[in-house]
Amino acid sequence: MNIARYAARREKLRELMSREGLDALLISHPANRFYLSGFELHDCQCNESSGHLLILRNGKDWLCTDSRYEESAAERWDRERVFIYKGPAAEEIRDLIRSNVSARIGIESAILSHDFVTRLEPGLSLEAADGLVEELRVIKDEEEIRLMEESARLNHQLMEWLPSILTAGNTEANIAWSIEKFFREHGATESSFSPIVARDAHAALPHYNPFEEAGGPTEIIPNCHILVDVGARLGNYCSDQTRTFWVGNQPEKRFLDMLDAVREAQRKAIAAIRPGMTGKEAWEIAMNSFAARGVEKHFTHSLGHGVGLETHEEPRLSPRSEKPLKEGMIVTVEPGLYYPGWGGARWEYMVIVEEDGCRVL
Amino acid sequence: MNIARYAARREKLRELMSREGLDALLISHPANRFYLSGFELHDCQCNESSGHLLILRNGKDWLCTDSRYEESAAERWDRERVFIYKGPAAEEIRDLIRSNVSARIGIESAILSHDFVTRLEPGLSLEAADGLVEELRVIKDEEEIRLMEESARLNHQLMEWLPSILTAGNTEANIAWSIEKFFREHGATESSFSPIVARDAHAALPHYNPFEEAGGPTEIIPNCHILVDVGARLGNYCSDQTRTFWVGNQPEKRFLDMLDAVREAQRKAIAAIRPGMTGKEAWEIAMNSFAARGVEKHFTHSLGHGVGLETHEEPRLSPRSEKPLKEGMIVTVEPGLYYPGWGGARWEYMVIVEEDGCRVL
Repeated sequence: MNIARYAARREKLRELMSREGLDALLISHPANRFYLSGFELHDCQCNESSGHLLILRNGKDWLCTDSRYEESAAERWDRERVFIYKGPAAEEIRDLIRSNVSARIGIESAILSHDFVTRLEPGLSLEAADGLVEELRVIKDEEEIRLMEESARLNHQLMEWLPSILTAGNTEANIAWSIEKFFREHGATESSFSPIVARDAHAALPHYNPFEEAGGPTEIIPNCHILVDVGARLGNYCSDQTRTFWVGNQPEKRFLDMLDAVREAQRKAIAAIRPGMTGKEAWEIAMNSFAARGVEKHFTHSLGHGVGLETHEEPRLSPRSEKPLKEGMIVTVEPGLYYPGWGGARWEYMVIVEEDGCRVL
Repeated sequence: MNIARYAARREKLRELMSREGLDALLISHPANRFYLSGFELHDCQCNESSGHLLILRNGKDWLCTDSRYEESAAERWDRERVFIYKGPAAEEIRDLIRSNVSARIGIESAILSHDFVTRLEPGLSLEAADGLVEELRVIKDEEEIRLMEESARLNHQLMEWLPSILTAGNTEANIAWSIEKFFREHGATESSFSPIVARDAHAALPHYNPFEEAGGPTEIIPNCHILVDVGARLGNYCSDQTRTFWVGNQPEKRFLDMLDAVREAQRKAIAAIRPGMTGKEAWEIAMNSFAARGVEKHFTHSLGHGVGLETHEEPRLSPRSEKPLKEGMIVTVEPGLYYPGWGGARWEYMVIVEEDGCRVL
């Protein structure tokens, strides 16, 4: 664990706090918390925080958590500045803030619950200050790029091995589980999201879950298509890759045309992505590519998203994203086409934005 | 999928809404959403909702989600009443609510982010209405009890097999992964939380993560103690069990005394738990049992928690829980003792509160 790296990130954050005129910033987003401290990348449960950081302009930051995490916190943080709440976190953190600072306090309003903020607020001057840590996280440093490359490499290795298990008689759920085992037995600590393995009509559901099929497991049959969208967390960083395979030696023309359209849209987007382009412009390149073939209404989602400590993070390659891409950002490029009742295809790479374009990881 | 079961639950919820004078209730908590609809037990990511239910007094409920989930939603819900938001969810749901209802609207304020509520609020009369679905969920019905028994049974089976892999030379991380494989290969869809396998001093950390050991994997050695706290999701319902094992044939007296104290506290609590007792009173029984041995300051957490669709849910067996236990509740009973730098022990069963006591699942 490189404690100095986390301290350096907090110093950079203090510059952004200074720019925003904030005297304190309460960090509650799990990945932001980890990015700044190395403490607990995950919350205990979606509705149960593992802790918060109180970042102060004067540099005397606090790590706030409950007693279950006390020892773990002290391994990563000056024990003198680990604050253990015994009762309701919001009220105790409020008292801690009041004894440290009295002026402008930023909170992550898109993460903290409305109830938490209501209980935190009395006597404090709170303001929404979302996105400051994300402003740092969105540009990957050298060490992060190395970790992301390793994470992507494991996913490529998986994709090379995968066709060997896409065989008639195997099931979507078995394949998904084999993928999870492959990742874990090659060093990943978890799947970065529940694997999507979707045959034929299931491939039309962009978030299909093979483990929750009501009618029992779906078998692979000769001459079908299978969409596989999977990722793993390796060295804390997530990968995210999609391929769509034909099983058998008689691919339908409809399938080949669909896949050709998807891969063309992806090629065009990757050729164009560079610093200064907005997420919307990147999405439009794929959309226009589909429109030239008259299939644009079957492309129903954004083109991609940032990936790093989280599977989905900033920036977004969506029609609503007006911010320019910058060197050092890592995003997925994953156009898809979906035909409810029949099937679908998606193809996804992770790319890093570089000085004069982008490079596939 | 039993659509009628979900509809019946929504009717029960309408009775509670009527009691509270609410005309509408926006359900955003993932497990509550699933409990009422069968749609998406998990959010896509901790900070990314898979959808919301808008429950109306007039019975014309809406399922609100984004296009990725459209087909999945329509498999579980009247397609005419699936609302797909194309842009920011809060603003579009606000417009949907305004076109349906104008009076008192409940929200889950402990789940929705402060930012979401701020954007949802204009023109609406919102009020915090947390805990209504939980009021239903906390009492398990016959089918849920059957599923919980199956989930607990799988965990018992794991615990019987486990000593065979707790051998010198194996590592905490390998054991944790073997446990996950055992669960998955016996029908579980996921681990209900990341497995805790903690040797000696690591056992003093109630939320130790064997996969994140900075110094590399910890090997099992002859004559050590290992705390194992694991759970799986089977048939959507979670199990949660802890045991503490001695590896080798020369158990230290200190270990045996610690374990004896923990198991005695557990026995006393289980013998006493019955309807009408508060969570605080249950916790006090364990605390008093430890106090009689003078070790109470090493019992640093609550006695247990409800378990069901979530690993941690209501009710809590904690010093702050004044609500009486009721027949049909399922809770863990998991006293523990922790000695930083040396080790710890915890022993956990799941029990169902019955008419005249409680029964271990």
